Amino acid sequence: MGITNGLAESFAQAEHIVTGSSKRSMRLLLRAFEEVDGDQASDMYGKGEVIEAFQTKMAKLLGKETAVFFPSGTMAQQIALRIWCDRKGIRKAAYHPLCHLEIHEERGLHELHGIQPVLLGGEDRLITLQDVQQMGEVGCLLLELPQREIGGQLPPFEELEAISAWCRDKGIPLHLDGARLFEIVPYYGRSEAEICRLFDSVYVSFYKGLGGIAGAVLVGDAGLAGEAKVWKRRHGGDLISLYPYIVSSDYYLDLRRPKMSRYYDGAKELARRLNEVAGLHTVPETPVSNMFHLHAALPAEQAARLFEQAARETGVALVGYVQEKTADRCASELSIGDRYEDLPPEKLEQALVLLDRLFREAGCGDE
Amino acid sequence: MGITNGLAESFAQAEHIVTGSSKRSMRLLLRAFEEVDGDQASDMYGKGEVIEAFQTKMAKLLGKETAVFFPSGTMAQQIALRIWCDRKGIRKAAYHPLCHLEIHEERGLHELHGIQPVLLGGEDRLITLQDVQQMGEVGCLLLELPQREIGGQLPPFEELEAISAWCRDKGIPLHLDGARLFEIVPYYGRSEAEICRLFDSVYVSFYKGLGGIAGAVLVGDAGLAGEAKVWKRRHGGDLISLYPYIVSSDYYLDLRRPKMSRYYDGAKELARRLNEVAGLHTVPETPVSNMFHLHAALPAEQAARLFEQAARETGVALVGYVQEKTADRCASELSIGDRYEDLPPEKLEQALVLLDRLFREAGCGDE
Repeated sequence: MGITNGLAESFAQAEHIVTGSSKRSMRLLLRAFEEVDGDQASDMYGKGEVIEAFQTKMAKLLGKETAVFFPSGTMAQQIALRIWCDRKGIRKAAYHPLCHLEIHEERGLHELHGIQPVLLGGEDRLITLQDVQQMGEVGCLLLELPQREIGGQLPPFEELEAISAWCRDKGIPLHLDGARLFEIVPYYGRSEAEICRLFDSVYVSFYKGLGGIAGAVLVGDAGLAGEAKVWKRRHGGDLISLYPYIVSSDYYLDLRRPKMSRYYDGAKELARRLNEVAGLHTVPETPVSNMFHLHAALPAEQAARLFEQAARETGVALVGYVQEKTADRCASELSIGDRYEDLPPEKLEQALVLLDRLFREAGCGDE
Repeated sequence: MGITNGLAESFAQAEHIVTGSSKRSMRLLLRAFEEVDGDQASDMYGKGEVIEAFQTKMAKLLGKETAVFFPSGTMAQQIALRIWCDRKGIRKAAYHPLCHLEIHEERGLHELHGIQPVLLGGEDRLITLQDVQQMGEVGCLLLELPQREIGGQLPPFEELEAISAWCRDKGIPLHLDGARLFEIVPYYGRSEAEICRLFDSVYVSFYKGLGGIAGAVLVGDAGLAGEAKVWKRRHGGDLISLYPYIVSSDYYLDLRRPKMSRYYDGAKELARRLNEVAGLHTVPETPVSNMFHLHAALPAEQAARLFEQAARETGVALVGYVQEKTADRCASELSIGDRYEDLPPEKLEQALVLLDRLFREAGCGDE
């Protein structure tokens, strides 16, 4: 990952952090449970008021018949893809080469479900309608919106509609990795339900932009949900009680979902300013959600030292790690949340001015 | 399951409940987090002080090299069996026909891991050394101590030692379903580590006798743990944060592990008195842990009505459900915890006297 310890340490110790909403401390849980009545009954193996009410709320919000709460998106998505592939009788799922299933799940979809990936799009671009039209026979197609590993890019909504229509016409189930679904609502100018309407199943996460502890929901029709509950039990995800994640997910959903437009505006503003710093540029150049990638035109170790120096001298930490892209280029990820609003503008300005000077001294210019 | 709603309702509404330690309300979580410092860092994908310290504690307590925390035992055990079967190159696991994997997991071990069961023992008896010697080629053997679904029975420790020695001699990995491991320490008069020494891998649960929210640990050597973490990620169990279950597991472990002898004594005392009631007998007759089954010599519906009547008239609820065994016999499960000690003895006596009268009036006698 090319994480340098000094940079991570400077990030952890900084007075001001630019990204995210809060530290992942146990206060997240304490805060979410502050108003909870101790007498409230626990969920029991997927049943009970606390889980059923939240599932109903999420199904309605996402415009689908039924929702199933899962401990993780890894579990929810493998299961969705397994169900669709079983129905089609084809053990192949199409998705992007930098999809979570491809790079973060130890090949679970193949090892547990015997499903082979069909990779569409590229390591620096989105899946297009043309990719989809040429993919051949698959059990289902997964789209991730925004495509996180390439900076959180999004296709035009019209292209999404065209992909959805093509899949429906061909009878190919379409699944949405909506880990950051709430974060794209402002850019598309469509509600979550309007976006989800294009998909047969959708997974959403509660700890990305929403900043909860953990947890996920899978929505679709009642048939899908029924099968998903059986697979959830098989995976070991049908815990006797999931309420620690349900209560906190509900709390942070209500707290932060209304703020997504502000996070998005903050991301655009910050990206514009970062693109003026020597040696830095953002991907996408203009963010389409609350997240983007920050690329630096220096080797990872060198850039890390400069980011660390800027954080230590100004108290404002921009990134906690950098990842090598090529021998002389590296990148990191920024997600705007509550902290950006609390950041004194003059402090941020100091950090950006210093970074500009440091990167210029290291040979980065305006060209 | 033959659960009658009236009986379940009478159980939920009773002033005194004989079994368990507390209601599964959200107070379980609030209580465990009362003293937690909000600044304490969350675990992150299996790393961090909170998960690593607890895993170290559990490995030491169970006398194994390494422990891995899991959200559920279903996940932990399938993974342990998969690793052993892979190492042996044999996709067969031997266990009891009423094992959790066989009856509560929707055939996950087969559907996800392609492992076939080899059933040993019977629906009313334990697995014996002879069963093991005759089982043929398997990838591993799972023993459950106590064997829950037949009342929580245990083999003599010497037979366990003989099974363990035989498996070691033949190179067959031996796994312990120790969901209720802490509960059998008093009967065997051996520490958890002394029991675990007979096994290559062990799973323990934190919400059976310990009364936590959810969570499990798998212990074994470092090689097993390393592979188990990869499979945990594949299953979708490597959550960004598991601390809600870790903190509560640790809390209830420390709170209730020291009480297991008292629970065991309570179970023996209660079973003795129940065996004096007309129409009732316990399995085992003398419990070997804090749990046992209560059999009633009446059809399920009729017995349920009598248990309900006794609960409503005396305020003391013994069971919340009964399960049909034959057309004229049914059974339920009792597990002794904190509540038994708080139960006024004269109240329990009233309930047992009334039950004796009701069952006699229904035709049950002393024969």
